[in-house]
Amino acid sequence: MKRSFVREILEAIDADTISFAGGLPDESLFPIAKIQKAATKTLMHSATLQYSVSGGITSLRQKIADYYCSLGLQTKVENILITTGAQQALDLISRAYFKSGVTVESPAYLGALGSFTANGCPLESVRLGSGGIDIKLFQKSFAKTKRAYLMCDFQNPTGKSYTLETRREIAKIAIEESGIIVEDGAYMELFFDERLPIMASFAPLNTLHVGSFSKILAPGLRLGWIRGEEELLRPILALKERADLHTSTLSQAIADEFWNDGGFDGHLEDVRGIYRTKSRYLVKQLRTKIPEFKFEEPHGGMFIYGSFPDGTDTRALAYACLAAGAVFVPGGEFYEGCPANNEARFNFTHTNFEQMEVGIDIVAKVYNNYAHNNYLNN
Amino acid sequence: MKRSFVREILEAIDADTISFAGGLPDESLFPIAKIQKAATKTLMHSATLQYSVSGGITSLRQKIADYYCSLGLQTKVENILITTGAQQALDLISRAYFKSGVTVESPAYLGALGSFTANGCPLESVRLGSGGIDIKLFQKSFAKTKRAYLMCDFQNPTGKSYTLETRREIAKIAIEESGIIVEDGAYMELFFDERLPIMASFAPLNTLHVGSFSKILAPGLRLGWIRGEEELLRPILALKERADLHTSTLSQAIADEFWNDGGFDGHLEDVRGIYRTKSRYLVKQLRTKIPEFKFEEPHGGMFIYGSFPDGTDTRALAYACLAAGAVFVPGGEFYEGCPANNEARFNFTHTNFEQMEVGIDIVAKVYNNYAHNNYLNN
Repeated sequence: MKRSFVREILEAIDADTISFAGGLPDESLFPIAKIQKAATKTLMHSATLQYSVSGGITSLRQKIADYYCSLGLQTKVENILITTGAQQALDLISRAYFKSGVTVESPAYLGALGSFTANGCPLESVRLGSGGIDIKLFQKSFAKTKRAYLMCDFQNPTGKSYTLETRREIAKIAIEESGIIVEDGAYMELFFDERLPIMASFAPLNTLHVGSFSKILAPGLRLGWIRGEEELLRPILALKERADLHTSTLSQAIADEFWNDGGFDGHLEDVRGIYRTKSRYLVKQLRTKIPEFKFEEPHGGMFIYGSFPDGTDTRALAYACLAAGAVFVPGGEFYEGCPANNEARFNFTHTNFEQMEVGIDIVAKVYNNYAHNNYLNN
Repeated sequence: MKRSFVREILEAIDADTISFAGGLPDESLFPIAKIQKAATKTLMHSATLQYSVSGGITSLRQKIADYYCSLGLQTKVENILITTGAQQALDLISRAYFKSGVTVESPAYLGALGSFTANGCPLESVRLGSGGIDIKLFQKSFAKTKRAYLMCDFQNPTGKSYTLETRREIAKIAIEESGIIVEDGAYMELFFDERLPIMASFAPLNTLHVGSFSKILAPGLRLGWIRGEEELLRPILALKERADLHTSTLSQAIADEFWNDGGFDGHLEDVRGIYRTKSRYLVKQLRTKIPEFKFEEPHGGMFIYGSFPDGTDTRALAYACLAAGAVFVPGGEFYEGCPANNEARFNFTHTNFEQMEVGIDIVAKVYNNYAHNNYLNN
């Protein structure tokens, strides 16, 4: 089994490489003092270090349930299952529900594709348009698979969101087909302007909504969750128990304590504000230094996704950039079978302004050399 | 898929139930002040909260490698893969290596049986004798499966250990057959008297040795590991990445800091001493109050395992005890297919002396009623 480009790159790059490759949050935004305080407080109790129930600790599940209620989606503790990051949610869900096939976006989150493939789940790719998945093609595919994995908010890798209308249509199809849609909401809180209702709110009984603390608190805790009907969660819970018994009690207790202490108040506004600023800075760097790279400005999330001119092999370009000290992810990685293509994803959250300037200078220089040689060869 | 009796019981029992059922360590032994100190120290660095590499943080892997070296088994960082508890190690290993079948002990750790079964791995059960697995039957089974899952130290559920001779013979067979043995060392540090060399030390290239921080530090951290040849670890690492990206960076960093700070010095001696005392106390309670329950005194681990008289249905007895306020695990749970039988497992680490007295009084009373009715019915 092939390891993923992103994970291999993350492990291979040295401290001097400027990386636009990963999906790492800006660690200067981690509310570390408040997390330290939460850890100290919860570590007054030995229960924080003991085994706990497979579904997750009740007080944290209740808070997540209340959060969905605040979004207008009636949710009880029983509808929440805590997982070891959203990645585990996808792994368990695919083992429980995708064995006969699943409709996925093209391009899609590669951690999902990797997990589904490893679990032997046949993929049916449907292309993403600018306002979400192509509805006609989706309908046709979903009629067969009855299962789909979608990221409606600031999709990874494209950064694009489904329109309100597309969300409603997808929900309608899910209900008509009595199917299950897994909506990955990992980036849903990272909106710069408006927030749209989650697709799950239009088809709550047919959706498993996956959430994550990785982008809103800290990924090192490995905390995610699934929201869904209790009956749909039951086989996932049985697999969860066998996968790792339960998610770190300490991580859960820290998130719970942080939340109790009002830790999220203001924090998410800070994160959104800084990510918006960073996003605009990288947009400007790319537009001025590599005008050949075409993309739409993101309205949330962590990524700028676009295309180099036709015929550019971005995988070759990415390796050449890596050798020169900067790296991004070639778009082919996000497609089934990893075909070569001219697309690329740049993360804007993990570099600072100076690194963005230097890093995009490197990419521009390597690209110009590449393009020059490419033209000579053609 | 059926959930496990133990996990269901753990979630169902109220605070007043005296439980001999789980495998929970004594939480009064958690070095909570030192863990708090380690958490505070490591949470000075934002890297503790960031994504980290799938194989685990290097400094912790190095310490685990050094620990194997101290046991006489040459081990490098590359031979260690950190997992989200030993349970995840078993889940990943079975997905990578057991798909065509695996030889298991009978009775065996039910979390392993559950995971292997959920992953579609055919089980070949071989009975345990008093000095380890039956060698002749093992050899026959392993010649077919080339894969085995064994717990040589203070086996769960029986509490028994393989003799030195059996370890050598198993290792010899593993090498002759070019097979892979997964040796689960979760309880290896909990010896009351002597420590035997791990089986892996006789067949290091053919063994994946699984370790855990759950019994020696704290299970709530969800920290375990696999020791093995890099080549054998590679497919497991690819699955690990897809299962949850990596184990909690915070949990890893706490264990590492705790170890740096000399946290294990003396700690394990304390744990062993108290568990030995508790074990003897429960032995005495059982011998005096339920003389019909036959068992050998344990020399380590967390469990007393034995048999009620022939014909006793310990599952019925366990449920009757639960209704009366005490619970143990019926032996049938540890066999493939969960047949009814007359065996039972009692944990001695999680109850205090008073609870042991009251709890065994309850079990004795329920048993005497049960036996009385049973004789009347027969």
